[in-house]
Amino acid sequence: MSKATKAKSPAIGPAIILVEPQLGENIGMVARAMANFGLTDLRLVNPRDGWPNEKAIATASKADHVITATQVFEKLDHAVADLNFLFATTARERDGFKQVRSPVHAARDMRGRASAGHKTGILFGRERFGLYNEEVAVADEIVTFPVNPQFASLNIAQAVLLMAYEWMKSGFADETQTNFAGPEIVPAERKHLLSFLDHLEEALDTRGYFRPAPKKPKMVDNLRAVLTRPGFSAEEIKVLRGVLSSLDYFSPKEPRGAGYPERKAKADKAKRMSDETGEAGGTGKGVDNG
Amino acid sequence: MSKATKAKSPAIGPAIILVEPQLGENIGMVARAMANFGLTDLRLVNPRDGWPNEKAIATASKADHVITATQVFEKLDHAVADLNFLFATTARERDGFKQVRSPVHAARDMRGRASAGHKTGILFGRERFGLYNEEVAVADEIVTFPVNPQFASLNIAQAVLLMAYEWMKSGFADETQTNFAGPEIVPAERKHLLSFLDHLEEALDTRGYFRPAPKKPKMVDNLRAVLTRPGFSAEEIKVLRGVLSSLDYFSPKEPRGAGYPERKAKADKAKRMSDETGEAGGTGKGVDNG
Repeated sequence: MSKATKAKSPAIGPAIILVEPQLGENIGMVARAMANFGLTDLRLVNPRDGWPNEKAIATASKADHVITATQVFEKLDHAVADLNFLFATTARERDGFKQVRSPVHAARDMRGRASAGHKTGILFGRERFGLYNEEVAVADEIVTFPVNPQFASLNIAQAVLLMAYEWMKSGFADETQTNFAGPEIVPAERKHLLSFLDHLEEALDTRGYFRPAPKKPKMVDNLRAVLTRPGFSAEEIKVLRGVLSSLDYFSPKEPRGAGYPERKAKADKAKRMSDETGEAGGTGKGVDNG
Repeated sequence: MSKATKAKSPAIGPAIILVEPQLGENIGMVARAMANFGLTDLRLVNPRDGWPNEKAIATASKADHVITATQVFEKLDHAVADLNFLFATTARERDGFKQVRSPVHAARDMRGRASAGHKTGILFGRERFGLYNEEVAVADEIVTFPVNPQFASLNIAQAVLLMAYEWMKSGFADETQTNFAGPEIVPAERKHLLSFLDHLEEALDTRGYFRPAPKKPKMVDNLRAVLTRPGFSAEEIKVLRGVLSSLDYFSPKEPRGAGYPERKAKADKAKRMSDETGEAGGTGKGVDNG
């Protein structure tokens, strides 16, 4: 029974216990997978090639803190002695009384236990044939991965990666959380979009785009629909205004920088006046050009 | 615009596009990761060591159907030409207008598009420095992995594994679904549990377990609480009955097989009688012993 006075600490991730791992490269990749998702407690039971292992260090890709802290045990019982709850990973169905869980379920379960101060762990078997039944028996429950039954061939580093990833996700308020966000795309206030559309339609009109004339209303509708659906932000519309200005006011023969085209001067002046009177009309010349 | 007559087919998984991958081992591990989660469409843009690649085949671990079908392109644009929607994976924040998604979100999004018959893909960059900005620009949105910011070092095979895993999960009605289930643990009907507890208490009582006498009611309560909480199934209780019978009726000097202890004969007879009269009392001698 846990003591009522037990100190609450930040949730500690599960121990990763590899039973008789054979290849140092796999142990290194396990350490790397763990480090990516904030796990640090690696335990080896009878690693075939002993410990420390140069190949493990080489493939750990700077996950030195995991490699350095790795503990080695002769017996599985000793490796799990301090843990309160233990999952065993297995790719195949076993007879017995143990519950079978998905990685998502197991990670959430361990997160809950860790938050209560309990120590958890996950057993991973040998490269060739996994865990013996008596090793699975040491665990409380089973985890299995939702692989394609026609091709089930995860190696231990892949299996550890998936569990470590689910552990990390289980700590998020929202499993679709990301470490950094894209721009917050707020559709621009309508006036910015409408001002752009007005300019575009005028530019197209003077070039005879809307033909035959009776079709103009339908063509305008379509054009507005195409450019309204994306929900452009104010910043995006600034980019589009710059594009349109370039196409409308300048030409290959008279590019930007070669002068101040008369029609652009006139438009800028009109925009300044409308800005001063508080009317819609974009943000002036300075931001037209991306 | 998609044709209204477009045939609906089972959801096709995203294409995995590796841009200028360097190591054949990584390509092989990518194929293996894909095969585990049912993806088959691997595309390479300018693989450094050419194609086919012996090391890729060696590390693919029997994912031959993926390796054999791998397509190679000189230009990224050609590799993605037939796709309707494209994600780019990146570990670092980029300037720009693209939405940043989690693997969970991206997989669900692609599942929805695939169900509508649209083709999707995911771009993965070079081992050393990922994707150039102009390559990210080809994609519609960005995916990033929720790694520990202090140690962000997923290789491309790990990144592909996580996306392939999320793709598989996105096809489940319930993300905690597993390929095989553990036993359905239905707590046994009370009569089985109570009959077992009666036997246990009697066996303990005859051995002087409940001492001092005034404490017996509390000790019985505790014992029943400990053995009721697990919600043992009927099958589990059968195992426990066998254990208890062995402990109660047999001894190291007179083990099972050495005879039919008088007390057991008496108990079996009592049980047979209660079974015949329709009373609770377990399922007879035959199932007592595991």
